[in-house]
Amino acid sequence: MRHDTDHEDIFRQESTFHYLFGVREPGYLGCIDVESGKATIFAPRLPQEYELWMGKILDADDIQEHYGVEEVVYVDEIASWFEGRAPSAVYVQRGKNSDSGTEVQPASFEGLDQYQVNEEALHTVVYETRARKNDEEIRLLRYVNRISSDAHIAMMRGARPGLMEYQLESTFAYGCHYNGGARLLSYTPIAGSGPNSAVLHYGHAGAPNDRKLEDGDIVLCDMGCELYCYASDITNSFPANGQFSADQKLIFETVAAMQTAVLSAMKPKVAWADMHELAYRVMCERLEAAGLLVGDVDEMMKVNVGGVLMPHGLGHFMGIDTHDVGGYPKESQRDGRDGFKALRLQRLLEPGFVLTVEPGVYFMDYALKKAKEDPELRRFFNWQRLQDFEGFGGIRLEDNVLVTEDGIENFTVAPRTVDEVEAVMRGEIADSVALIAWRDERQEQGQLEEEYA
Amino acid sequence: MRHDTDHEDIFRQESTFHYLFGVREPGYLGCIDVESGKATIFAPRLPQEYELWMGKILDADDIQEHYGVEEVVYVDEIASWFEGRAPSAVYVQRGKNSDSGTEVQPASFEGLDQYQVNEEALHTVVYETRARKNDEEIRLLRYVNRISSDAHIAMMRGARPGLMEYQLESTFAYGCHYNGGARLLSYTPIAGSGPNSAVLHYGHAGAPNDRKLEDGDIVLCDMGCELYCYASDITNSFPANGQFSADQKLIFETVAAMQTAVLSAMKPKVAWADMHELAYRVMCERLEAAGLLVGDVDEMMKVNVGGVLMPHGLGHFMGIDTHDVGGYPKESQRDGRDGFKALRLQRLLEPGFVLTVEPGVYFMDYALKKAKEDPELRRFFNWQRLQDFEGFGGIRLEDNVLVTEDGIENFTVAPRTVDEVEAVMRGEIADSVALIAWRDERQEQGQLEEEYA
Repeated sequence: MRHDTDHEDIFRQESTFHYLFGVREPGYLGCIDVESGKATIFAPRLPQEYELWMGKILDADDIQEHYGVEEVVYVDEIASWFEGRAPSAVYVQRGKNSDSGTEVQPASFEGLDQYQVNEEALHTVVYETRARKNDEEIRLLRYVNRISSDAHIAMMRGARPGLMEYQLESTFAYGCHYNGGARLLSYTPIAGSGPNSAVLHYGHAGAPNDRKLEDGDIVLCDMGCELYCYASDITNSFPANGQFSADQKLIFETVAAMQTAVLSAMKPKVAWADMHELAYRVMCERLEAAGLLVGDVDEMMKVNVGGVLMPHGLGHFMGIDTHDVGGYPKESQRDGRDGFKALRLQRLLEPGFVLTVEPGVYFMDYALKKAKEDPELRRFFNWQRLQDFEGFGGIRLEDNVLVTEDGIENFTVAPRTVDEVEAVMRGEIADSVALIAWRDERQEQGQLEEEYA
Repeated sequence: MRHDTDHEDIFRQESTFHYLFGVREPGYLGCIDVESGKATIFAPRLPQEYELWMGKILDADDIQEHYGVEEVVYVDEIASWFEGRAPSAVYVQRGKNSDSGTEVQPASFEGLDQYQVNEEALHTVVYETRARKNDEEIRLLRYVNRISSDAHIAMMRGARPGLMEYQLESTFAYGCHYNGGARLLSYTPIAGSGPNSAVLHYGHAGAPNDRKLEDGDIVLCDMGCELYCYASDITNSFPANGQFSADQKLIFETVAAMQTAVLSAMKPKVAWADMHELAYRVMCERLEAAGLLVGDVDEMMKVNVGGVLMPHGLGHFMGIDTHDVGGYPKESQRDGRDGFKALRLQRLLEPGFVLTVEPGVYFMDYALKKAKEDPELRRFFNWQRLQDFEGFGGIRLEDNVLVTEDGIENFTVAPRTVDEVEAVMRGEIADSVALIAWRDERQEQGQLEEEYA
């Protein structure tokens, strides 16, 4: 219930419980026999009147078939079920979530204390298992990403000056639900126009995407949905009026180059912090060439100029949680530098990891003011030229990718060049399938032109 | 945070706090000086880095202007602010919410215990005040209802066999948000087709509106949104294929007659339980005339036949909460009979009350089976005829109305006759304005025909 009222939000299953048992209703417990691998779920015994309000009551056989577990027992039989099995140890999960800092609370039932209860081992095992996606999870994540890519493209096609930011949010949510069956969004949508595009978590209750899009604005939309609890987390950035100005093009192409560099370099055994650094290096090189930054790029990297223009992490694990678990195994440490300290994972890539790759460049008053006051940092910025970017906001591009044996698979199909964005906004590209066809056509044409040349 | 993860749902302000201070962000406290009526809010002091993630930090003057209060002080100054005032008593709210049964927890701060704290008086005062809507609240509720009426009509226009129930839900949500700026739904949408239309709280996480609409189905959509925390709560029922069968028409017109009777009888000093009884009486009369019920209607009323076919309450208070507060003042008692016991208010109507009026008729296996086993009840049902309604589900019509000095104002503009529903579903009526025009036209034509006759 919300506060002291009668309002119940839509129940969303606890992520690890969903991962292990797939149950979508509240009030269940679950147990896996470590030796046999057999899964048992303990279902609540519902009162007959449940039928009036909530629907047909499934019996144990129906539940077993529905969730594909080996056994279904009622919650009130849990103690006797354990007695019959006399387990040598019972593993329950207790541990910290490194993204939120909150503690996972272990499951419990009356009579549990008569067994040898282990609160240590399970947490690491289950987080490490969740970090490596299996084939079924990959299929689902790929599908959710395509739904979301299509909804992003539909949202961009409908964008124009005069619209409210929340109309972009609602168009996205509608596309995901109506066309893809995804009822829940995986996080609060960010639809930031103009200066709001540089507020990293814009869109919250205090700033609910309620500004009007102006001609000349950059719009940054960071939106994802979830299906069967599996998330997408995609960002597109585009000019409100459908045509990039020279400065908008410069920043967009800088961010696109950062993303392309990272996507090309990602493969097993690569350290994620190195990818973050690579993004910063490409940013510094590009902005130095364009005259926004001045000086030697190696020197910029030493004092972490990138952290001023992109103070967030390059990406994070994604799965049942948008910020998925396993980013900081016990031995790993946080890096204290700006940007690096915001990284939600600090480890070597492995096949089966699913991550977001979301470089950005933002012109934030607060960050730039701090840099201007810092003798180490201020000399690398062309403050004169930066005046052109007052009120510009920022640009981010975010894809969701799977680490494979020798590289990556990119789940996201969204416009990633100036041409693609402008074609989408002219209405020439209606969805992800059309975008792929458009790309194929250009590539073919390019090859033909090369042949004729 | 959701469970142990990094996922934060969109913050929604506690209802009474919103009512008194209008603040949409978390972390605030508020105080009203009883003698002068001056309102003070205590704002959290935000760290500078807030700007990067959440946006510009408003200073006290900005906050004061934004929320229209007399004074803004920071939360860390609350103790000294009270010291300076030395109040003779501090009233905080503690009490029970009669809809959820949960307890409102009183506000607190360090140093509060040195004052005379009264936890009794405020609860009743604030709940009674919230029960009577003022002009600004009425304007807002009227507007939210029009947004929602339009979204319902758009949803019905798009309905057809083959669609999934959740496509109706998403169409409604989109309409409210895109056209009306209403980001949050006021409760979990119910889009029940066929037998699901008789499951009163269908649409929850265990049954997320995921059945396909079939030709011949009745569809019951109970959906509302909220704007600035003020709710709508509307139900439409219609045939999936756009044309009523004879039996569907019979039940629809029965429910419409129940609603019309209640709406015509509502005015100040009328007891809400009497309205509930009136709805049952109209139901029994109609269904007796149609041959579904048999026997004397007065006898039916004595054994509460209505409670079998409509086991929920006729309506509830609506405002900042969908099930708004104040339904059971201290002296009032629950009525134990089926249907009556589900009533969320038990009192005489007063000007300023806003209520839902939501009669229904449902063919529920569980309720009918119980009635068949009850010697008092079973003789009133034509069990032979009732076989035609197996799998029928149910029909509900729900409007939101304001009690005025001499009657009501109906905020809801939705199709309430067979003709209106069919015209909407043929695409002839696009929104609430068109529906009103359609009604006016029919009325005018009727008058003309009368004149010529």
